[in-house]
This record gives sequence, C-alpha cells and structure tokens, in this order.
Amino acid sequence: MAYLNENYLKLQAGYLFPEVARRVREFCEADPKAAERLIRCGIGDVTEPLPRAAIEAMKRAIEELGHHETFRGYGPEQGYEFLRSAIAQNDYRGRNIEIADDEIFVSDGSKCDYGYILDILGDQNKFAVPDPVYPVYVDTNVMTGHTGHARKDGSYEGILYLPCTAENNFVPEPPKEHIDLIYLCFPNNPTGAVASRAQLSRWVDYAREHEALLLFDAAYEAYISKQDIPRSIFEVPGARECAIEFRSFSKNGGFTGVRCGFTVMPKSLLARTENGRRLPLHPLWQRRWSTKSNSVSYPVQRGAEALYSEQGRKQVHALIDHYMGNAKLLRDAATDAGLEAFGGVNAPYIWVKTSQGLTSWQMFDRMLRELNVVITPGAGFGAQGEGHFRISAFNSRENAEEVARRLKKLR
Amino acid sequence: MAYLNENYLKLQAGYLFPEVARRVREFCEADPKAAERLIRCGIGDVTEPLPRAAIEAMKRAIEELGHHETFRGYGPEQGYEFLRSAIAQNDYRGRNIEIADDEIFVSDGSKCDYGYILDILGDQNKFAVPDPVYPVYVDTNVMTGHTGHARKDGSYEGILYLPCTAENNFVPEPPKEHIDLIYLCFPNNPTGAVASRAQLSRWVDYAREHEALLLFDAAYEAYISKQDIPRSIFEVPGARECAIEFRSFSKNGGFTGVRCGFTVMPKSLLARTENGRRLPLHPLWQRRWSTKSNSVSYPVQRGAEALYSEQGRKQVHALIDHYMGNAKLLRDAATDAGLEAFGGVNAPYIWVKTSQGLTSWQMFDRMLRELNVVITPGAGFGAQGEGHFRISAFNSRENAEEVARRLKKLR
Repeated sequence: MAYLNENYLKLQAGYLFPEVARRVREFCEADPKAAERLIRCGIGDVTEPLPRAAIEAMKRAIEELGHHETFRGYGPEQGYEFLRSAIAQNDYRGRNIEIADDEIFVSDGSKCDYGYILDILGDQNKFAVPDPVYPVYVDTNVMTGHTGHARKDGSYEGILYLPCTAENNFVPEPPKEHIDLIYLCFPNNPTGAVASRAQLSRWVDYAREHEALLLFDAAYEAYISKQDIPRSIFEVPGARECAIEFRSFSKNGGFTGVRCGFTVMPKSLLARTENGRRLPLHPLWQRRWSTKSNSVSYPVQRGAEALYSEQGRKQVHALIDHYMGNAKLLRDAATDAGLEAFGGVNAPYIWVKTSQGLTSWQMFDRMLRELNVVITPGAGFGAQGEGHFRISAFNSRENAEEVARRLKKLR
Repeated sequence: MAYLNENYLKLQAGYLFPEVARRVREFCEADPKAAERLIRCGIGDVTEPLPRAAIEAMKRAIEELGHHETFRGYGPEQGYEFLRSAIAQNDYRGRNIEIADDEIFVSDGSKCDYGYILDILGDQNKFAVPDPVYPVYVDTNVMTGHTGHARKDGSYEGILYLPCTAENNFVPEPPKEHIDLIYLCFPNNPTGAVASRAQLSRWVDYAREHEALLLFDAAYEAYISKQDIPRSIFEVPGARECAIEFRSFSKNGGFTGVRCGFTVMPKSLLARTENGRRLPLHPLWQRRWSTKSNSVSYPVQRGAEALYSEQGRKQVHALIDHYMGNAKLLRDAATDAGLEAFGGVNAPYIWVKTSQGLTSWQMFDRMLRELNVVITPGAGFGAQGEGHFRISAFNSRENAEEVARRLKKLR
C-alpha cells in the first residue's frame, strides 16, 4: 500500500484560521441575531476595492488573450520580464539596492513561497523562528519533516524559538548557538513590531559569521511610516550574501484574492552540500520554477505591474492610509479601554494583552460573545502569543469605528 | 552554512523545454532569415484566443473586485464552491461518476499539482512511470529524493520504467512486481495513445491487488473522439479506492497562460503509515491546501466556471475541433512523407519515428535547419522516446498547413 507523509500527523488539530472560521460559524448558527452585528478583525484580509489601475490593466490583459495577434500561452516560468523588471527597478534599484531583474521570482503569493522555498533546502538545516509567528513558517517545516513532535504548549521539538515579548520590543536578538536558517518578519505579523537598521545589522552579522540564511518576510513593508526603518533586508550591507526576501502584493495592492507575490534570490547566495561544496542557490530556485510551475496568470502579472504606475502608486498609498487610519483608531480605543496595546504604527496589526488574565482563546470567545467582534487569539501564533490577541486593521472605516466604540464596553 | 537539497544536483542538464528553447534561440540568432519562417510545433502550448465566455466572466469578476459590495479577498484554500461544484457536476456526476464537490481541489495547473501531490506521500514509495513520459513526473520525484542517480541514457536508478512502444500500442501492462505509485497519462503525452476500458481495468485490478495508488493524468481528455474510450479513471469500477485524477483547463479552455487545473481526491482513498495504520489521504490533501496555498485567483476561477456554461462548452468544442483538424493534417502529412506516425486521433500530439535512423535530437536539428520547424525530440521524454519525435497540433490552421507542406520535403 502507498505510504503517506507521516509528518502531517504531527500537525496540531487545525491550522489557525480555519479553526477561527469554525468557531465563528458555530457562533453565528447559534445566535443569528448577534451574527448580523458581527465584525471581523481576525484574518489579515483586505476589505477595500482593488486599485483601479490594476483592474484596468487586468481587463486589458484578458482582452488581449481574446485575439490572435495578442494571445499568449505559457509565460516564462519565473515571471514575465515586464513584471520582474518593474519590481527590481521600483522596489530595489530605485532605492539604491542592487537587485537584478533575474533575481526576482514571481509567485502566486508569499504563503505559497514559504512552502516552495523548502524544496531547494536540505533537511539537515537547524532552523529558528520568532515566537509568536505566522504559523505557516512552522507548519510547512513540520510537513517536510524538519521538526520533532508537538509539545503540550503547541511548540515543536527541533525548532529554536526566539521569544518576542514586550521586554525586547518584540524584536529578538541573534542566539548564542549555531543556526542555519532563520525566519524573520518585519513589519511583524502578528505583533506589528518593526526592526531598526541596527537590529537587522546584528542579524546580518550573525548570519555571515555562522554562514546562516535569513528568510526575510517583508510582506508588510508598505505600512512602514517611520523614515529610518529598513523596508528591505537588502538595505543592510552584506545581506546579498545571506538573505532571501519574500514580498507580496496582497497587502499593498489588495491582491489577497488575486494572488501575486515574489521572492528575491540574490545570485551571490551560497549554500552547502553534505560534503562541503558551496554552490549558489539561484540555479536551484530557477530550476524549481522551470520544473514545477508555469508561473502566475498573465492578467494577474499585468495587474501587479500596474501597481507601479503613477496612478497605481497613488491608489496603493490611499489604501495604506485608509488601513493605517483604522489602525490608529483601534489602537487608541484598545488603550482607552485599559488594554495594553502594541503595534499599529508601522503595521496594520494591533497586538493586545488580554484582560483579567484570560487565555487568548478565552478572550477570543469573550470578544465574539460580548462584542460580536472576531479577533485572532495570540496562542495561534505560538506559545509566547498566549495572553495576547491580534486586531487586524483591514476593514472599512465604518467597521473600525464601530469596533472602537464596542471596545470601550470591555472596561 | 545552510544546506541545499542535493537531489537537485542529480537532475539532467536542462529541463526539456528550456533546452528546446535554447537551441531555437541560438538558431534564430545565427540565421535571422530562417528565423522569420520558423513554425513552432514543439511545446504543447495552445495558440488560439481564449473562449469568449471565459473572457467575459473574468472581466466581470475583476470588475467585482473594484467595488465595495462585491469585493472578495482570500477565497477558500481548496477553491470556490461554485467552481468545485461545476466541475464535479459536469465532468463527473453528469456522466454517472460519483464524485463529491469537496473531492475536487482547484489548483494553478496540473504541472504544479504533480509536484504538490508528493507533499502528502511518503518517501518510501516505489514508483513506476511510463517511458516515454511527460518529464515533470520524474523530475519532481528526483528533486524530492525518490530516485537514485541518472544513468547514461537519462533514466534514473530507483524508478521502474514501463516501456510504451509500437509493440504494445504505447499502453503498458501492469508489471509483475509490487509498486506503490504508478503514473498513467491518457490520452498520452507524448505518444497520443489512449487506453481502452479493459486496459484501464487491468491497472485498477493491479492497484487494488497491490493496494497501489494510480496518479492518473487526464489533462487531454477533451481530445478523445472515440466513444468507448474512458475520459476519467473513475469510469472504471474500483478506481475510487486506488486513484487520484489530474485535470487541467489548459488544453480544453486554452488556459496555459491563465493557469487553472484541479485534482480529484476521493475520500475513499487510503494510504499507510510505516507501522501499518491505514488513513485516508483526503484530510492530508485538504490540510496541504489550507496551509500552503490561498487557492487560485478569483477571476481565473470564474473564467474556468464559464467554460461549463452553454456558450463556453460550444467555444471549447470549437477549439478542440480546430486543433484536431490540425492533428489530422499533420499526421497525414507525416505519413505521406514516408514517416511512421502514431497518435493524433484522440490527442493533439503526433508521435513520429525519426527517418534514416537519426537520434531524436539529430532529427530536431534537421527539422529546425531544413524545414525551420520546431518539434520536440523524443529522447526528452525518456529512453524509449529515442528515435522518435513529437509534433504538436497546437497551432493556427495556416501554420499547420504550412508545416504539412514542408514535411513533404523530408522525403
């Protein structure tokens, strides 16, 4: 009989967001009247219409596919040159960061990329993740057999967890021991924290000393409001020798349902074989895409390209301003309600301590029942997330204002 | 230093189609005049405009994303119910095949699915592939460490190859030995062969006896013209206990650049753990999608749905008729030129023996140089493909007619 991948059996009962969805569904079925008042600040999903520039570009691209002269079939597996070049030029070279077009790999979203990247890495790597953290980093490694079994608190054997707490402003320092792969995410999901240039430099120094690899998730870079906070790991000298960056159009262009993101894989990045040969990762990544994908829908790539047009940029800025306006409202309301709140300044997430010593799932249930507001329980992001919850600022202004009003009833 | 996945180093120099592209590029650069006459019958890529029904549906869907009332963010990770239901109803239940909506998993294409499926299967499985075969089945297994090293003829240690030759009409019989996983593809790429109900039944019998799993690639089912040839492995009784089916909108709806396909994962399908527990694969596949993907672009899913509308079906039929008209022209021309030709009746590929005992890459170079026609060398599909080449019928009628004329010069 065919064997299954037993590593899947190590996974905790539910991936966080489906579990949140399940509890919300049960609540709504039991109390349809309260369900009508429900406001979702749980999953980090955008709510505002797509930028018009992207819509028009996608419609034009689809129409192109309807005519002989402009029809396109398979595109280049790593993404169309028009998009790779727009990304490299606008997000990197235009900001004095040396990234070549062919170091950009277009994908169907960052969530997918975190799984894909493990394809080209060895199973021997020791890896570290911040705690709390976006669950996909850990779960994809569990599935691939890079961890031991789960402990009672939901953590896994074989992972080095880097606690992110109020004490270190939610930015961990490099560890004393040797680690091969480190996941970092700034602006952070779920805490909303950002890392300074000095803090990122210490990580790059660590990575170069240990010849480690940084997997840097910059999906929320568009939300950075402070001038001196790096938007890319490649702003830090030396990062081209030790980092891969992950970016997404989900949270700037509102592409959560349209699906497009990319990785930046510098050609200068090396990794080792078991017997000590040092080889560049770029050809492996190139090969992974050639063999396992036919890249992203052509109209979607045209939509992503349009986000870099003059109109597209303005529309993206307006979206970011909108969500960050919500973030301010929500953070202020949480503080006014006597809650201890973090984040929400350079990121669309507010990270809040639960009241009255509740666990984060208790707080989830209380918010759902008493305020009819869906949040995300911190424990879903890791052991250190216990006692916290995440409020997402992705909402209409009207909903954000209403949630702010309701939060005051928590007093 | 971080370890890389050394299995990638076992891969042959170039994935077939990039290698074809490289040779064509070099030829065109060296002889720009001949380049102008070039006709591509190499890669199996559609050439005709998308069905109008799909275009209109996608444009409507994109416009929906531009308005508050109709905006959608993340969709269900396994695909929208509207599409899963359209597929299950039209491709299966409407043809008396028992498949539930939630046994359909929407993806960004079959090529991707062949890699994804290995996520949930164990590394202990012994597997078999037809030879010749679509290279992605083998290469994804090489990358995952399921094979040994490559031999001189391009085959890999640790794979059971099932020769598909003129002697067995390119349909292999089940082997004597035990195998856990078997890839089958009918209508076949590259040979254009189809399997009869009796032949598929023997495979299902084998799979049930050995508790093996059939990975059935039906990407070309729309090209079947003979009434009694099964379009789905699930037409064969017992297949729900031993098969996963892979389908695509690339070759019927012309979605090679739009990207959409699906897998059918019956809930009745079991696989084993090392210590002999038998568990259903469906929850693992469900979890794979929840954790590693956010499904396919919403407008693309609406486009795929529209292929099942009345207009959509008519437009798809017209596309198939067009390509199969080309297939007949090309097969007849090859035969007229004194070449031994197979396929092209229930599949858009013609599988041809090389002339004068040329190797398939020699034949590729000859066709390129003398006829300025790009074909695919059979050796790229496996050792048994040596001495053959594949002509793709995906082209305009004008080009197919011109290739037919040029083929006659081969005499």
